[in-house]
Amino acid sequence: MDSVTLTEIKRQQKGWKEAFKYLETKSENVKVKFLKYKNRTWIFTGCGTSLYIAQTASYCFTKITGIQSKAVAASEVIISPEIVFPNDEFVLVPISRSGTTTEIVLAARKSGKEFSIPTIAVSCTSESELVGECDNAITFPFQREESVVMTGSFLTMLLSIIYLALELSEDTNEKLRSELTTLPDGSEKLMLSNELYIKEIACKLDLNEFVFLGQGPMYGLANEAALKMQEMTISVAQGYHTLEYRHGPKSTCAENTFAAVMLSDNGFDLEAKLIPELKDFGASTLVLYSDTEREHVNKADFKIEIPKGYSDLMKPFFYLPLLQLLGYYRAVAKGINPDSPKNLTQVVKF
Amino acid sequence: MDSVTLTEIKRQQKGWKEAFKYLETKSENVKVKFLKYKNRTWIFTGCGTSLYIAQTASYCFTKITGIQSKAVAASEVIISPEIVFPNDEFVLVPISRSGTTTEIVLAARKSGKEFSIPTIAVSCTSESELVGECDNAITFPFQREESVVMTGSFLTMLLSIIYLALELSEDTNEKLRSELTTLPDGSEKLMLSNELYIKEIACKLDLNEFVFLGQGPMYGLANEAALKMQEMTISVAQGYHTLEYRHGPKSTCAENTFAAVMLSDNGFDLEAKLIPELKDFGASTLVLYSDTEREHVNKADFKIEIPKGYSDLMKPFFYLPLLQLLGYYRAVAKGINPDSPKNLTQVVKF
Repeated sequence: MDSVTLTEIKRQQKGWKEAFKYLETKSENVKVKFLKYKNRTWIFTGCGTSLYIAQTASYCFTKITGIQSKAVAASEVIISPEIVFPNDEFVLVPISRSGTTTEIVLAARKSGKEFSIPTIAVSCTSESELVGECDNAITFPFQREESVVMTGSFLTMLLSIIYLALELSEDTNEKLRSELTTLPDGSEKLMLSNELYIKEIACKLDLNEFVFLGQGPMYGLANEAALKMQEMTISVAQGYHTLEYRHGPKSTCAENTFAAVMLSDNGFDLEAKLIPELKDFGASTLVLYSDTEREHVNKADFKIEIPKGYSDLMKPFFYLPLLQLLGYYRAVAKGINPDSPKNLTQVVKF
Repeated sequence: MDSVTLTEIKRQQKGWKEAFKYLETKSENVKVKFLKYKNRTWIFTGCGTSLYIAQTASYCFTKITGIQSKAVAASEVIISPEIVFPNDEFVLVPISRSGTTTEIVLAARKSGKEFSIPTIAVSCTSESELVGECDNAITFPFQREESVVMTGSFLTMLLSIIYLALELSEDTNEKLRSELTTLPDGSEKLMLSNELYIKEIACKLDLNEFVFLGQGPMYGLANEAALKMQEMTISVAQGYHTLEYRHGPKSTCAENTFAAVMLSDNGFDLEAKLIPELKDFGASTLVLYSDTEREHVNKADFKIEIPKGYSDLMKPFFYLPLLQLLGYYRAVAKGINPDSPKNLTQVVKF
């Protein structure tokens, strides 16, 4: 029988198509309900993978709408709500695959009941404790994930927040909207055509210190790719802002280090300079990029070029499935079953 | 000759006294200059250790003043300023020990010149490229640090931001102000009386996976303690929000894991519950706390109790010197010279 984790990684692009078709039918509704909050600060919140969705979503949301936003761990919303909401000019967007994680339910309840903050749940499940706690919910048709490790749901939930941002934006965003129509097929094709290449990288078992680097919308992705590697392969992995890696973390960089750099167009010149430095420390490097090849990119050991012309906001949809596969195949190479990760359960409740 | 890193860790409390005495003479000035920005969002920014100062400082600043704030990596201010400043209602507080790190200088320049955002440098150096770029600067008498790894300057710069917040606050903050007067001696006494105990923990070399956990003002500290361990001992170390550790990272938790939990009073009940779970995975745990001993705390392998009665905002001044010593003594136990960390230089320039 096929691994449920692998199945869920590989079916995700089909899911985006369905989700987006569904979400487009809801557009008028979104404007009416949420445009009144455009002068508030939007707080995207979640736990684990959903916190990393929140980090990327906050970037995309502000980029598209111009509305101020912030990503906050759900635990901080529960423990320090007075810091998250120093006044009442906020909106809370709790993100959760199942809608049943204890912290996210408590965060939504506290924000709504005690701080009178409007709440908009983003979830793969349309009826849940979380949706029940929130004033509004954005959910979409989603094949239930059986896996413990969240994969396909990351980008589907991100997509639903991008859809929300597009509806709230004053611009027509024609370029982005047109990119979205070709995104699922483009991402699927890239993923399938690189599956063997990624399998080869995953089998290099002498590389055992993992670092994932990204700026802007790729920062949440860096954290998520590190978490996938840690959960699936039971190896410690770290995510950083690309330029932050120089400020201390690189002290451990050596021959056993594997560093994946997810380049943006926005910061290309600053970010790509790190590649030769990583090489000088002896690290093996994988570079994900969309640009035509330039000097620094050519220094990488492994390279995957995504189709040209997509905005930085669309790059997560190409980059992340590749790194999910990397985690999956490395687990398999290590003889670990990624469907049954050590110490973990599907939902954290307490 | 004594290690400069050890000297700088152990002299820091004396430095706080001097810095605070000096800063108090500037109080009127601060009110006149900055009170007009109280309806703006304050962005605290830095690189590496200074980014982690920014994370703790943002929490303390909002807690004391009620003013909205956020910590952002300096690299994001350079690469994505339109996301950091979606409108002009912001203030930038760049933090840097030397004031010469390329990214922080560029971040201040971009914010001021291109986005007309007021800038207030916080630095240990009163004349620097950074101070030259900023509209205002908060600097203080500070013995120049010779070390590569930043230690004493973390809490001294944090203290200067707390001082700024107290001046901008509408409350008298009598309790906090009174805590500050006893803080340096209290912290020094705790540090010295636990030095041998920490040395003993540091010598347990079979513990080689390091995790540092904290919520609220202790989250920036968790990241900083992990960075100290990584830089000084050339071992990978991770920092997380305490409750986030359950959401995936715990997959690697095992007999070789050392987890330090920095408890807050605010989140005590939620945070302390993790201690028995860490024990169940086989980890060795160090708990830093101020509360009278309760059930979960007693389950920890190592415990350090700080003096009672201090607010959560003051706990970093007790907790961090202990963890800096832990990093230092572990490096020594591993035969590594913490004054010459691998791959690193004192300032990152490019």
